[in-house]
Amino acid sequence: VNVLIVYAHPEPRSFNGAMRDLAVQTLGELGHQVQVSDLYAMRFNPVAGPGDFRDRADPTHLSILREQRYAAAGPGYAPDIAAEHEKLFWADLIIFQFPLWWRSVPAIMKGYFDRVFTLGLIYGRGSKGLRGKKAMLAYTTGGPVSEDGEQEEIEWLNRQLIPIREGIIQYLGLEELPPYIAFGPAGVDDAKREQYLEAYRNHLIQLTAKQEATR
Amino acid sequence: VNVLIVYAHPEPRSFNGAMRDLAVQTLGELGHQVQVSDLYAMRFNPVAGPGDFRDRADPTHLSILREQRYAAAGPGYAPDIAAEHEKLFWADLIIFQFPLWWRSVPAIMKGYFDRVFTLGLIYGRGSKGLRGKKAMLAYTTGGPVSEDGEQEEIEWLNRQLIPIREGIIQYLGLEELPPYIAFGPAGVDDAKREQYLEAYRNHLIQLTAKQEATR
Repeated sequence: VNVLIVYAHPEPRSFNGAMRDLAVQTLGELGHQVQVSDLYAMRFNPVAGPGDFRDRADPTHLSILREQRYAAAGPGYAPDIAAEHEKLFWADLIIFQFPLWWRSVPAIMKGYFDRVFTLGLIYGRGSKGLRGKKAMLAYTTGGPVSEDGEQEEIEWLNRQLIPIREGIIQYLGLEELPPYIAFGPAGVDDAKREQYLEAYRNHLIQLTAKQEATR
Repeated sequence: VNVLIVYAHPEPRSFNGAMRDLAVQTLGELGHQVQVSDLYAMRFNPVAGPGDFRDRADPTHLSILREQRYAAAGPGYAPDIAAEHEKLFWADLIIFQFPLWWRSVPAIMKGYFDRVFTLGLIYGRGSKGLRGKKAMLAYTTGGPVSEDGEQEEIEWLNRQLIPIREGIIQYLGLEELPPYIAFGPAGVDDAKREQYLEAYRNHLIQLTAKQEATR
């Protein structure tokens, strides 16, 4: 299985950083191929704009969708976008890993969606597309589980992420695998963080085992 | 009424640009004070990171929340963030204007949320906060109204934007005013676009009249 981890966190030594390292190690040990798009480390530009395109359908008036479609028809995208397209087409499974900020992904990852998920190539009429691949969210929250309990919390989070889960993952034809959520890792002790990492490790092992079984 | 328009669109000559200009003109004619944070024109940096802070509570390990709280306690924020704080405290009404991209705001505006809505100053224990101010979303969609009709479409959009409406606007103690939505302006003719602008003008007149009446 080829796995692309699209990862966004500003601090390599964070719990998110530990999750990323663990995923790379675990998936590698299982014999999978792994690439990481570490958006902060790459200094990924999240701001969709005129620089996204090698040529312009209309250089005087920027419509992102029109230019995305034009780029797909031949001229192509800026190198940083094209590089991500290559990784996405290579991948069987795409993991989006991030800290939940304002009930969504950090801006640098929102910009990945805005710039890389392009009309005409990744979705839309005549696109090559990502249909049939799998996707998974792996994220950390800021606080502990609420008094309603973990299952309620997971369902609440699933609802908050509908714009991404339905609006992006499903819309692109990706099959969503169960998410991995670490609840408030900044507020728990080291033993609990170790438990979280062990649970993430098991989550990855189980998921990719199922992946292999269904190929 | 002091109005801050936080605006995100890469093309000044777009329909969003026309909406922004119309809002500035209309609100000015009504005697209101208007400031615009034109995020693309300002080349606003949407990527939360170590540069957001004048000093660091822990220079060796970046926790955005810890550093936001530390900055609020004295050292302060980077100049671009501090400038937005000033505008937010000045404003009675904050309009977030944007094209809907992937059922959310463009990354440059998500980064405004991530970097400017800081713990310890804008929300959280001991914060000065924005409580009692008003906020409004003004946005364009990519396509026409679905067959279910406009009211269904508005309700669907309201649900998609819950992470922003509840998770940010309500959470910050802002009172949300009815949104203005222009449905697929890129796909309609000039006469329809003029209608949209006239409707936006009336929307702004009515809202701010109510504002004045309740002061």
